[in-house]
Amino acid sequence: MTADITLTPDELTSKVVAIFRAAGFSAQQAGPIAGVIVAGERDACKSHGIYRIEGCLRTLKHGKVVPDAVPTLTQDESAIVRVDAKGGFANAAFEMGAPVLAERAKALGLAALVINDCTHFSALWPEVEALTERGLAAIAMCPSYATVAPTGGTTALMGTNPLAFGWPRAGHAPYVFDFATSVAARGEVELHRIAGKPLPEGWAVDAEGAPTTDPTAALAGAMLPFGGHKGSAISMMIELLAGVMIGDMTSPEALDFLGTTTIAPRHGELIIAFCPDRFAAAKGGVNLDQAEALFDAVLGQGARLPSTRRFTARAESMANGITLNADEQAMLERLLAGGLDAVS
Amino acid sequence: MTADITLTPDELTSKVVAIFRAAGFSAQQAGPIAGVIVAGERDACKSHGIYRIEGCLRTLKHGKVVPDAVPTLTQDESAIVRVDAKGGFANAAFEMGAPVLAERAKALGLAALVINDCTHFSALWPEVEALTERGLAAIAMCPSYATVAPTGGTTALMGTNPLAFGWPRAGHAPYVFDFATSVAARGEVELHRIAGKPLPEGWAVDAEGAPTTDPTAALAGAMLPFGGHKGSAISMMIELLAGVMIGDMTSPEALDFLGTTTIAPRHGELIIAFCPDRFAAAKGGVNLDQAEALFDAVLGQGARLPSTRRFTARAESMANGITLNADEQAMLERLLAGGLDAVS
Repeated sequence: MTADITLTPDELTSKVVAIFRAAGFSAQQAGPIAGVIVAGERDACKSHGIYRIEGCLRTLKHGKVVPDAVPTLTQDESAIVRVDAKGGFANAAFEMGAPVLAERAKALGLAALVINDCTHFSALWPEVEALTERGLAAIAMCPSYATVAPTGGTTALMGTNPLAFGWPRAGHAPYVFDFATSVAARGEVELHRIAGKPLPEGWAVDAEGAPTTDPTAALAGAMLPFGGHKGSAISMMIELLAGVMIGDMTSPEALDFLGTTTIAPRHGELIIAFCPDRFAAAKGGVNLDQAEALFDAVLGQGARLPSTRRFTARAESMANGITLNADEQAMLERLLAGGLDAVS
Repeated sequence: MTADITLTPDELTSKVVAIFRAAGFSAQQAGPIAGVIVAGERDACKSHGIYRIEGCLRTLKHGKVVPDAVPTLTQDESAIVRVDAKGGFANAAFEMGAPVLAERAKALGLAALVINDCTHFSALWPEVEALTERGLAAIAMCPSYATVAPTGGTTALMGTNPLAFGWPRAGHAPYVFDFATSVAARGEVELHRIAGKPLPEGWAVDAEGAPTTDPTAALAGAMLPFGGHKGSAISMMIELLAGVMIGDMTSPEALDFLGTTTIAPRHGELIIAFCPDRFAAAKGGVNLDQAEALFDAVLGQGARLPSTRRFTARAESMANGITLNADEQAMLERLLAGGLDAVS
């Protein structure tokens, strides 16, 4: 029996890059993918950590991602920066687009990054965090594949459609949230299934549209939006802005394209960046102390800021490394040695 | 005893304008204010209908709105259009800014309208609807005054912070939602108090932070965000983007400025407009049929599109007029005759 091992984030990144390279991904694709996977593991965000590797490889095995895609960026005089991911994962496309988005947002006050034709599996917080590091606020959103019924309905239509937001803070980790507009992320349902645990009430309906707490029945049926009709409306907004408006797939179209929910979905992504200094220019510049007063008031009444658990885990990982148990080590070894043959 | 009367929207608008003019509002202010109030009444959106008139007059009586404010618009090479409302209600400022916002969004793909130093009482759907009529998608948001506790907290900090979205449709009323990021709008709590009805569970806490269904206790305590920590995070995003970022008041600052929650709050507003044709240009233009397929799928499974009730009521009002009961007629007569002396 193998004992736990502890790796630095860089050491784990090297292992994950090696897995993707061995499976046939280019260096341009493998690096950014490994970056967000290790960021998830580092932040104890297990549903977007190394657990995701096999799904990425499975997506390639199904021929639904281009492993050596070379994204292309186009820019004009507008506030829209476009990156065509050319069927690769979104991560390399984002890394190409982010500096140009930031430049445009600083020049114009706000700007949008449209990523088209990407395959997507990752959390959005790495992207909004990267923009806060450039002094910008940012909203990111994307469709997924049809797994969520609209409130009042019975059948999967929308995706889990994540919404993320970041706000830059001086001397603190940014204010960041990133959540599925379903009650729970699909990854959370998968983790319940793997762990053999029932779902909380209200997460899902089965294939007949009846409420269920069985993760397998939920995965065959539909999840429900968070917050009733309000969350359902926000999820639809994401289909419209980050699907239809950018000329890319909606969640039902993505499911049709894939034919399965066991691989990463193909769609687009929309990221809007705001330059607070430009916005508040007419009022003498942004006063970040106003934001800090809000955060202090939240903490002062015993409530929490989002992502706190993640930032705490990050500090721990950066100081003491990332610990992998025997099963996790075996998974990494299996995928490194077996490549696409190792995935179902 | 007075019988019900039925008025056309234009007839009711004339009455409402006359009330605001008699109370001292300029024609430039009174027209847009009356427009949104009558739109609310027309759409059977009673919490933003003629019920709001007295609160508007009370705000003037307290010296917290400038009744003859002349908004000013400034524009530069950025994607930000700014209107300084000069302490007047937001409505005249929006009417000034909307055409310029639309022009900038069409030129740049997306643009933002910042309204600063406005007094605000109205729903946001008239604004996003006005932008859909120009072929644009739009998001609008604003803080309010501190009446909502963050999830996990006990004390009012954020406002009810509405979020609205509009999407243009060909041959149909637009896809529009507009909701408070609290479980319910404050106006809904007020209407429960006036009607002597208890609140549903989960709407509010009392002044000690304990759950309550008493509307009066709720108004003295704090409302709760919709959708738990996710809704709470969205409400905070609105404080940051539409308060701090635009150099205007956050909800606790607005409450400090006013000293009461019985009059309309002072703050700013942020409206982001998107030109779908520009966004999808690289993909051959926007395909609105994709959106219609989503809407059809919602309706086909027995779920509803947001604002359906409002659009149905609108069609009824446009065909058959707006009916006012005896109490409503008496209120309008009292406010017209008494002006500011008629409000407490």
